Amino acid sequence: MSSTRIEHDFLGEKEISNSVYYGVQTLRALENFSITGIPISKEPLFIQAFGYVKKAAALANRDCGVLDSKVTEAMVYACDKLISGEYIDQFVSDLIQGGAGTSCNMNANEVIANIGLEYMGHQKGEYDYLHPNNHVNCSQSTNDAYPTAFRIALYKKLDIYIKSLESLQAAFSRKSNEFKDVLKMGRTQLQDAVPMTLGSEFHGWATTVGEDIQRMRESQKLICECNMGATAIGTRINAPEGYPELCTKYLADISGIPITLAEDLIEATSDTGAYVQISGTLKRSVIKISKICNDLRLLSSGPRTGLNEINLPKMQPGSSIMPGKVNPVIPEVVNQTAYYVIGADVTITLAAEGGQLQLNVMEPVIAFSLFTSLEYMTNAIHTLISKCINGITANEEVCKNLVMNSIGIVTSLNPILGYEESASIAKEALNTGKSVHDIVVKDRKLITQEKWDEIYSIENMIHPKFIKE
Amino acid sequence: MSSTRIEHDFLGEKEISNSVYYGVQTLRALENFSITGIPISKEPLFIQAFGYVKKAAALANRDCGVLDSKVTEAMVYACDKLISGEYIDQFVSDLIQGGAGTSCNMNANEVIANIGLEYMGHQKGEYDYLHPNNHVNCSQSTNDAYPTAFRIALYKKLDIYIKSLESLQAAFSRKSNEFKDVLKMGRTQLQDAVPMTLGSEFHGWATTVGEDIQRMRESQKLICECNMGATAIGTRINAPEGYPELCTKYLADISGIPITLAEDLIEATSDTGAYVQISGTLKRSVIKISKICNDLRLLSSGPRTGLNEINLPKMQPGSSIMPGKVNPVIPEVVNQTAYYVIGADVTITLAAEGGQLQLNVMEPVIAFSLFTSLEYMTNAIHTLISKCINGITANEEVCKNLVMNSIGIVTSLNPILGYEESASIAKEALNTGKSVHDIVVKDRKLITQEKWDEIYSIENMIHPKFIKE
Amino acid sequence: MSSTRIEHDFLGEKEISNSVYYGVQTLRALENFSITGIPISKEPLFIQAFGYVKKAAALANRDCGVLDSKVTEAMVYACDKLISGEYIDQFVSDLIQGGAGTSCNMNANEVIANIGLEYMGHQKGEYDYLHPNNHVNCSQSTNDAYPTAFRIALYKKLDIYIKSLESLQAAFSRKSNEFKDVLKMGRTQLQDAVPMTLGSEFHGWATTVGEDIQRMRESQKLICECNMGATAIGTRINAPEGYPELCTKYLADISGIPITLAEDLIEATSDTGAYVQISGTLKRSVIKISKICNDLRLLSSGPRTGLNEINLPKMQPGSSIMPGKVNPVIPEVVNQTAYYVIGADVTITLAAEGGQLQLNVMEPVIAFSLFTSLEYMTNAIHTLISKCINGITANEEVCKNLVMNSIGIVTSLNPILGYEESASIAKEALNTGKSVHDIVVKDRKLITQEKWDEIYSIENMIHPKFIKE
Amino acid sequence: MSSTRIEHDFLGEKEISNSVYYGVQTLRALENFSITGIPISKEPLFIQAFGYVKKAAALANRDCGVLDSKVTEAMVYACDKLISGEYIDQFVSDLIQGGAGTSCNMNANEVIANIGLEYMGHQKGEYDYLHPNNHVNCSQSTNDAYPTAFRIALYKKLDIYIKSLESLQAAFSRKSNEFKDVLKMGRTQLQDAVPMTLGSEFHGWATTVGEDIQRMRESQKLICECNMGATAIGTRINAPEGYPELCTKYLADISGIPITLAEDLIEATSDTGAYVQISGTLKRSVIKISKICNDLRLLSSGPRTGLNEINLPKMQPGSSIMPGKVNPVIPEVVNQTAYYVIGADVTITLAAEGGQLQLNVMEPVIAFSLFTSLEYMTNAIHTLISKCINGITANEEVCKNLVMNSIGIVTSLNPILGYEESASIAKEALNTGKSVHDIVVKDRKLITQEKWDEIYSIENMIHPKFIKE
Repeated sequence: MSSTRIEHDFLGEKEISNSVYYGVQTLRALENFSITGIPISKEPLFIQAFGYVKKAAALANRDCGVLDSKVTEAMVYACDKLISGEYIDQFVSDLIQGGAGTSCNMNANEVIANIGLEYMGHQKGEYDYLHPNNHVNCSQSTNDAYPTAFRIALYKKLDIYIKSLESLQAAFSRKSNEFKDVLKMGRTQLQDAVPMTLGSEFHGWATTVGEDIQRMRESQKLICECNMGATAIGTRINAPEGYPELCTKYLADISGIPITLAEDLIEATSDTGAYVQISGTLKRSVIKISKICNDLRLLSSGPRTGLNEINLPKMQPGSSIMPGKVNPVIPEVVNQTAYYVIGADVTITLAAEGGQLQLNVMEPVIAFSLFTSLEYMTNAIHTLISKCINGITANEEVCKNLVMNSIGIVTSLNPILGYEESASIAKEALNTGKSVHDIVVKDRKLITQEKWDEIYSIENMIHPKFIKE
Repeated sequence: MSSTRIEHDFLGEKEISNSVYYGVQTLRALENFSITGIPISKEPLFIQAFGYVKKAAALANRDCGVLDSKVTEAMVYACDKLISGEYIDQFVSDLIQGGAGTSCNMNANEVIANIGLEYMGHQKGEYDYLHPNNHVNCSQSTNDAYPTAFRIALYKKLDIYIKSLESLQAAFSRKSNEFKDVLKMGRTQLQDAVPMTLGSEFHGWATTVGEDIQRMRESQKLICECNMGATAIGTRINAPEGYPELCTKYLADISGIPITLAEDLIEATSDTGAYVQISGTLKRSVIKISKICNDLRLLSSGPRTGLNEINLPKMQPGSSIMPGKVNPVIPEVVNQTAYYVIGADVTITLAAEGGQLQLNVMEPVIAFSLFTSLEYMTNAIHTLISKCINGITANEEVCKNLVMNSIGIVTSLNPILGYEESASIAKEALNTGKSVHDIVVKDRKLITQEKWDEIYSIENMIHPKFIKE
Repeated sequence: MSSTRIEHDFLGEKEISNSVYYGVQTLRALENFSITGIPISKEPLFIQAFGYVKKAAALANRDCGVLDSKVTEAMVYACDKLISGEYIDQFVSDLIQGGAGTSCNMNANEVIANIGLEYMGHQKGEYDYLHPNNHVNCSQSTNDAYPTAFRIALYKKLDIYIKSLESLQAAFSRKSNEFKDVLKMGRTQLQDAVPMTLGSEFHGWATTVGEDIQRMRESQKLICECNMGATAIGTRINAPEGYPELCTKYLADISGIPITLAEDLIEATSDTGAYVQISGTLKRSVIKISKICNDLRLLSSGPRTGLNEINLPKMQPGSSIMPGKVNPVIPEVVNQTAYYVIGADVTITLAAEGGQLQLNVMEPVIAFSLFTSLEYMTNAIHTLISKCINGITANEEVCKNLVMNSIGIVTSLNPILGYEESASIAKEALNTGKSVHDIVVKDRKLITQEKWDEIYSIENMIHPKFIKE
Repeated sequence: MSSTRIEHDFLGEKEISNSVYYGVQTLRALENFSITGIPISKEPLFIQAFGYVKKAAALANRDCGVLDSKVTEAMVYACDKLISGEYIDQFVSDLIQGGAGTSCNMNANEVIANIGLEYMGHQKGEYDYLHPNNHVNCSQSTNDAYPTAFRIALYKKLDIYIKSLESLQAAFSRKSNEFKDVLKMGRTQLQDAVPMTLGSEFHGWATTVGEDIQRMRESQKLICECNMGATAIGTRINAPEGYPELCTKYLADISGIPITLAEDLIEATSDTGAYVQISGTLKRSVIKISKICNDLRLLSSGPRTGLNEINLPKMQPGSSIMPGKVNPVIPEVVNQTAYYVIGADVTITLAAEGGQLQLNVMEPVIAFSLFTSLEYMTNAIHTLISKCINGITANEEVCKNLVMNSIGIVTSLNPILGYEESASIAKEALNTGKSVHDIVVKDRKLITQEKWDEIYSIENMIHPKFIKE
């Protein structure tokens, strides 16, 4: 067998190594797009998704009488190889590409055709027996096959991301329980406010992540809608009667995802609303996590000239010059990953707005952005859990002393003394450095020591009861 | 009566005109914040919402035995005035303000106190009888009252925005029906693709707006959750037993919005997730509308050197120099408004991420951004409907001729001739300028004229049937 | 005289009140664009700039022999009125508008025509004598007149903004001097680092603002390039020989701005690069100021449970519930204004990218965004200076004690003891709570007390000398 | 020799393979940061820059008498290896990392130490002879070494990017010349405007890219300022007298970049203004290129149902279903790359704003974003030039016919007939489908055929002369 073969498309002929399963159109894509250097094979779930899509199409085409069973069998064989992760090195086009994904789709079509050809006992390139366009792409267009494969991969990546959020929520919950009796000062606007517990602070973080999980799940549902059978622009041109519904049903069965067929295929073919929504919800969740990391860095600031309420696990020496310095490197890397995701949301916005007429040609950069955002952020969350949250300890004494030394505790006296008297006490404390206790009980004799003890019992500060004169 | 009165807070005394109902703290806010020059009175729904919040708080406090019925009655009277839109000129603080909304809240507290004082037969400023903090703000903090009022106003503004989307969807639907038989060329990547109808293009737009309506409604639900009774940081400090639940119930009754109490008040007090979600969903909807406006401008481009498939209503002379030129000014202004909203989403992102510890102090700029975005975009949508969509007409002949003259119609021959033969026909047509018909039927004699007529009947092009040899 | 007049354009007739100086096209704009409710009269410098542009055009046209001296005189009279700020209420079109600014330009053309007509002894609307298009807009198009007026107004607004930066720099410098001997702890990554002075911290802020002033001035130069005479698309169609150069010269003289003519008028007519650059540089400066405000809030956090190194002036009671609480409301409002500007940069990005072919039709939203960003941020900076920076005081004792109590001071021992020994001291200090001094001098006896005193003299900590064994 | 060695830092011991040159701190970084999977070795210029920085520091330290010549020689040997690109596989930390770049810096310190040790005849890990901190990092901190290395790498990447812009400008200029006589219709707001040449359109693109080159060069200068010797926070702690100036001088010599020392080292150590400026200017240039690609796609739209004025080279079959379809895949991929860069600017904005106090800890994600943006965009520009611009051809006949058939040519009659008469002609042409010529010359007999021919000569349309009655 020769080491190369000649393939052609309507632009001409190309020589192609016989060692590869892709064909002439993939080769052109390779030559055309050298942008990121990141091939689509970096997203194995995406390649697997093409396996699902092409298999479902093959079976639906067979049922519609458009493909014979022999050809179908070969294609199903090839698709199953893709689904199981084989031949992934044959997927070489750059993730950011022109052509609205045609190169991805043709890469899949060509690889499937050549695997199928070998299964049938033919040589690679003998497309008369099994053709990338006429058979593998039968009743399809890039414009339905590509977004559908993208959606399936995205669905699965969202599963993984949501699982990381669940782990994060659980980690915060565990710590919330551990710290439930640690009294500390709450702060608003970075100014001393009123007491709370460290446990309730962590509980708040668990709650907020829990809400994001719900939002992510809602968004995830939006991409279960596919447009298989829309073909070029949603008019179903060249798709046999019944094919769209059949193909969708096969796809749901094979992928295990509750995929349904869009009602308006014209709309579905150009619409990128679901991606925008997912990016927006993803952004919501990373904003929250970034905010929490900001808080973790603040609360662990010090050790001597900061708040020093909690200790993060020491992960690495913090300075090449300052001995003993340890930095909050894990929250820091999570913040930065969050900024990446927030920037990617703007990329997606531009891409979604830039689509024109019957197709959004900018979909590949949307795929790139969502794939990398989810990947990086999932990594960041697992890092945050295992290398930071799980090992956090509280400086209980520091926390309690800050409370007792604060002026903010005067707030508890409002219902008894009124806002104005309380404000005057606060002012005196601030100006003189005296404690609120001394001013209230000793100097002004406004309440007795017993009443003071009642109001400022640990129990009452953790779970404030309403006490009025 | 003197023309001024002296009020004081713990920072000192201020002289204030007796003609105004606000007090010393609002005066300080006026002096402190001169950023946008846009006072909170520009958002009447926001002022009304403070009426709802303060009324619900007054009634709940009375029920809890914290306020007597005389004081409550005066406050309810004053709140009802706010609800009905009176005294709106007394709300003078700048929409963008420091202090996490304290100035808004105190503005409401002071105005309500002084209206109530007059109702009780007292003079403005005689706060011993009815005090902005001790009575009007009783069992509250800015940190629960402000976001709750914001949410109520936002809920109502979203109602108005969603109604505008519904009108837009209806306008597209009507046009979709009107244009259901106008055959035209579909385009992908700005290149000729396959035929469709103008009606189905408009139908797609109606569908896409319809989906946004659903998404907006889902997001709107998120802000029904309030944190009344959380007081300063969510620990319920200084709020009597049962007050949060009671206040929430009153609030739902009075406002007519299905408001519920957040389960985790600590989390709810600093969380801005719902605003981020609403901004993201709003952004989704404006991206779509902007994309549609891009399409409208493309489709109406010309009249002689563009696509010229549709005519937009002529709204104004389009040029100060080019006679007779008429421009698509309405889609253009909608595009620009969409860009404003997209920018505001970034503002909101930064504000949400910048919140620290127990409160997000950046909430006022979130309110500013969402209020203006919703206002401008609602205006833009109504403009789009009445001054553009409703008056669009189709250039039917132009549309049809473009189809018949196109090469893209060769796609319909794929199932009969195969992709490669079809591609070769397309190539010849492109190179020679010949029509697809002539090459297929006359030169290559691949199908008969009858077959051709069957495939290219208007009916089949509008609703493509699968035709195979 | 009748109370109304009839005007017409090629779309038909409109009745218009005789009390107004604008005409039929402005009326149409009023009806078409109700988006922000903010009329162009809110930017007096913009209206003034139209006065400059139209006056320069009139004089250049006269010199070219295209307009007679009588008509020119009337127009010059009218333009001078605009320049001096009269008739500003006649500029009614919404700042965000379709038509690439045609409505602004026609608003100016019509108002100038009618002022001129009255000056000539005619009635408003008698355009035979002085026509908005034929005379006032002579040798112009919206596409050169509008961006040129925008640039002049922007230049002047940048002057004002840069002045505010200069005041800010001066304020930081004054404080830098005042605090030059206040020893404090420097922090990196919110962890204790090494000593510095509060004066050098403020000096750094003065330096950074100073750099932004340079960058803003460089950007400002970019908008001195105008395209007068480009007319519709830059081909100079309908502009007499020599007019572009002459008009530019007049414009520079009249406006006092060193305006020059673009070399490539085709490019200049669609290019928005200068706006993008200005927005980017403006964003740079607000990022810095926002960062400084974040620092101010951190350094003044407390008073008892934060860093408490500095005191911001108390501007207003900080809480409706927590007595005596005072918040950093001024930095907070500056942060939020910065977020607005950052969002607006994205709006401008989309508008700049969305321009097509020979004109950027999205320029009005660029003008809106830059005008409001500069306005709000200038306000914010003046507020920051007068209500915050100028009144900051230092808590000198707190600052010094934090340094002496810190572990970070061990860094000074590196050159003497080596990094590893120093790290071990730091570790012991952290674990045991002992001071660095005691471990080094008393326990490990690594250096003498005298050496210690030399290394840790205030002088050496403020201006570290290199000390090695 | 054992296959592993034990290294320790103040957090404990780690076993490390003897095959690697990095040490314990790099190993910790590897374990801590698995976010993008992209190691710093993917930026060879960055590693090279560390070679420059460490070599300059070594030489300056030697000159200051802090390091002996033997140790210096070993380090210089090792740095030269890095500069020549060897050992690049030893740079393994993730590009996005916490710790403000400490892991990068320590990675360099450790690799240099171990190369140097072998050069000195010692084993890897025998740090007593040559220590990563005490020797390689002598008189340095991550906080000066990391940003300086980043700046050098960035400077060189900007050189490469600017070269790509120069090639693009040249490509546009060549085409501008080629198309200088192709008459075509100019369009504003997608509506027919007035004639121009295709050459002048390309010339405008050359001009606009030329301006960006100037802006990029100005921005590039900003990063020539370094802060070597600032050490931890800019106070020069632990740096010998004269070292900063000496080190900077060496660095300029070695790197060939005109590096200078910042005047205010405190400011320089936390400031990220130069990165924001570069990102903003980079964004400016990609906005322009994206706009041009939008135009290329518009002008080549068709072939039969679009503008069809130019032909882009056919790079690949454009559809898996529509035979013969060829898409503008190169401009499309460039648009998407531009969106990536625009999103990255937002990431950088957040990172710059998020820096606190004496250091911006978010610098690694700024480096990541600028490195990838410049890399991808440089690739995209070269792709655009070689696979698109160079091969563009004009459809001269199409272009000319569109002009002659247009209504916009009526603009040339303004100076002769006045705006209102011209508008009426335009209106009639639009309503009746008649040509402007026939209405003017035949029906209304407003000008003679000769006058017409004069006005509408190709010469006059390409270079409009002012013609007035």
